[in-house]
Amino acid sequence: MSIKDDIISMATQARQASRKLANLSSMVKNDAILSMAEALLDNLEQILEENRKDLDNAKERGLSAALVDRLALNEKRVMAMAAGLRDIAALPDPIGEIGSMCRRPNGLQIGKMRVPLGVIGIIYEARPNVTADAAGLCFKSGNAVILRGGSEAINSNKIIASTLDNAATSAGVPQGSISLIKNTDRQAVRELVKLNGLVDVIILRGGKSLIETIGTESSVPIISHGAGNCHVFVDKDAAVSMAMRIVFNAKVQRPGVCNAMESLLVHKDIAMEFLPEMIGQLKGAGVEVRGCTETRGIVPDILEATEEDWGKEYLDLILSIKVVSSLDEAIEHIHKYGSSHSEAIVTSSYANSARFLQEIDAAAVYVNASTRFTDGGEFGLGAEMGISTQKLHARGPMGLCELTTTKFIILGNGQIRE
Amino acid sequence: MSIKDDIISMATQARQASRKLANLSSMVKNDAILSMAEALLDNLEQILEENRKDLDNAKERGLSAALVDRLALNEKRVMAMAAGLRDIAALPDPIGEIGSMCRRPNGLQIGKMRVPLGVIGIIYEARPNVTADAAGLCFKSGNAVILRGGSEAINSNKIIASTLDNAATSAGVPQGSISLIKNTDRQAVRELVKLNGLVDVIILRGGKSLIETIGTESSVPIISHGAGNCHVFVDKDAAVSMAMRIVFNAKVQRPGVCNAMESLLVHKDIAMEFLPEMIGQLKGAGVEVRGCTETRGIVPDILEATEEDWGKEYLDLILSIKVVSSLDEAIEHIHKYGSSHSEAIVTSSYANSARFLQEIDAAAVYVNASTRFTDGGEFGLGAEMGISTQKLHARGPMGLCELTTTKFIILGNGQIRE
Repeated sequence: MSIKDDIISMATQARQASRKLANLSSMVKNDAILSMAEALLDNLEQILEENRKDLDNAKERGLSAALVDRLALNEKRVMAMAAGLRDIAALPDPIGEIGSMCRRPNGLQIGKMRVPLGVIGIIYEARPNVTADAAGLCFKSGNAVILRGGSEAINSNKIIASTLDNAATSAGVPQGSISLIKNTDRQAVRELVKLNGLVDVIILRGGKSLIETIGTESSVPIISHGAGNCHVFVDKDAAVSMAMRIVFNAKVQRPGVCNAMESLLVHKDIAMEFLPEMIGQLKGAGVEVRGCTETRGIVPDILEATEEDWGKEYLDLILSIKVVSSLDEAIEHIHKYGSSHSEAIVTSSYANSARFLQEIDAAAVYVNASTRFTDGGEFGLGAEMGISTQKLHARGPMGLCELTTTKFIILGNGQIRE
Repeated sequence: MSIKDDIISMATQARQASRKLANLSSMVKNDAILSMAEALLDNLEQILEENRKDLDNAKERGLSAALVDRLALNEKRVMAMAAGLRDIAALPDPIGEIGSMCRRPNGLQIGKMRVPLGVIGIIYEARPNVTADAAGLCFKSGNAVILRGGSEAINSNKIIASTLDNAATSAGVPQGSISLIKNTDRQAVRELVKLNGLVDVIILRGGKSLIETIGTESSVPIISHGAGNCHVFVDKDAAVSMAMRIVFNAKVQRPGVCNAMESLLVHKDIAMEFLPEMIGQLKGAGVEVRGCTETRGIVPDILEATEEDWGKEYLDLILSIKVVSSLDEAIEHIHKYGSSHSEAIVTSSYANSARFLQEIDAAAVYVNASTRFTDGGEFGLGAEMGISTQKLHARGPMGLCELTTTKFIILGNGQIRE
């Protein structure tokens, strides 16, 4: 069977399954998700064994320690995957909810019913726990899912997906509800994103080049989990100790993730008071600081930030710093170089907080808090499928609701249009 | 200037305007929309004169009477355009609305603020009134708009767009908020849909071939207003007189539009009682009826429906009829041949109405009413930008809300992530 035929056959089966999935009761879905959680624990040894193969391959291929860490499973991590599934089972079922039902002058009752999207393809990288999270979320929201993890995690993903699939089908879920593309060739993704009509949406988690290539080739609508070049702007009347706490947290607490701060903007009137101690703290935590001319005028002992730095997502202990002369300049800079992910202001000014909230165009806009909170769990969504950096359909952390659509339902008693 | 440079420069100006538009007060927007309405009436003579050029060209090019009718403006139609704009001014402003604000355990307040999409491109066909509707709706929802009407209406669209643009800019709206692509070459559309980053969404109203070609080429997300192969299913225990009224209305009242019925499904147990009189009525209204074998067994004097008929959007006084043996078969048929636009059941069964509402996957699902109601005005949205036949972002008639997105806003007092 060619890759193409293989993918088409998988998507066709997923499409058929999706019709049945859309009509499953919450009780059946929740029972299946709990069985999936249990099966992961039952298969713990096998999962760790397959994961060891991936780890051996990774070491042979010389992958970075960070990547190997993301790839690695242990008993605790598998238990966390199972716990994640149980959390998903406990969430309210979004499907079937009927909103804003109203009666029109002619007596028609018109409302919107929440329904699954249908078939969701998800393309992701190293972390094998995404396989379980994505399967659980898609399934709970009544969707069939086609999983495509990174080649470095293929053995782990195979055993996790087959464990979940077996548990689900034993619990009465239609065959084809959860599938994994086992072919690690990029061609498989190329075929998948052409299947408009069979696949309803592709969720794309990955690097910039993957998003650009697939985005151009896809005829299926895409929701991409893109880069985060996040800023904190310290306004002139910010409380200095709060600003220091937030900046330190946004940069240092977990630098390798998309909601970490990459660039710090400081109002010129507070720069002299704020920067020396802040930069000292950051350097103490191992951060490489790159500053604009004004910043280096205050703290000379740092590298120079180039034009390229302003647009960069380091995902590392590196920070660029720019002194700005106004809120307007800060907003302008963020719109010019930012990636519309998470942006924060630290201020004690009511007017400036309101302007920042209103004018900054990003998925998450903060006043006096760390950008690190942009996350489905932290936002109270229960679990997340990724963070959308686009504007259509979903923006910011995506929970169950973002995996659904609506249909209008119209209840009449014989109405015709005059 | 090349077509490409021209379109890029237009989109860049629109992008700049969109930043300012997003922050205009409702009062300024409404005043501008009322000025736009007034300007249309002030320029009535000029608009009709330019429209006559389009009508002359249409006659020369031998366009159909139906197309010429859709193209034609007169005093009444221009007044209706102005009234449409006044209606839009009277609608509540969706921008700035803050929903589901809640307090997290750590004290963060998190909610979603409704904001404009940014720059909206709309590609549409003959009717010049769409120019005014689209400009009014995009502008009210804080978006810059790039209009691309059909070549047959170019003179009308030019004068309408420049009238609206002049009125808006005189009312203090930023330059570039409303632009019309004057080049009628298809190449202009090709360039527009490549401008991901400058244009946030393309709304595509047009034939299947346009949607397919542009859909494949576009790097900008698309919302398409696609075809409507709509069905009415007459269940075995339907009230016969109600079923006849609904079927007649869905087919005959305005056959050339997307929410008209194209195919009738009739339960076998009611076919004998229902079909002879129904077909008689339809024929009396000039409808050409094409039936399946069972239908022709009951009413022999009609054409035979072929496989091709089931998938066809006639947009004309033609109807295909199929006798089915169950609700399941009806649902199966609709999913196989339908276009997920508007689907209706006529029934007196509570269980069957519930199953139809639940199981049919379409933008609008009706019980005991004509499919002809699928329309923004009829659904109470005030006005509409088209009817989305896709699932992502918007489904069904699109009003002001569907031209917006949201951003998370997070209000803290120094929270950091542990």
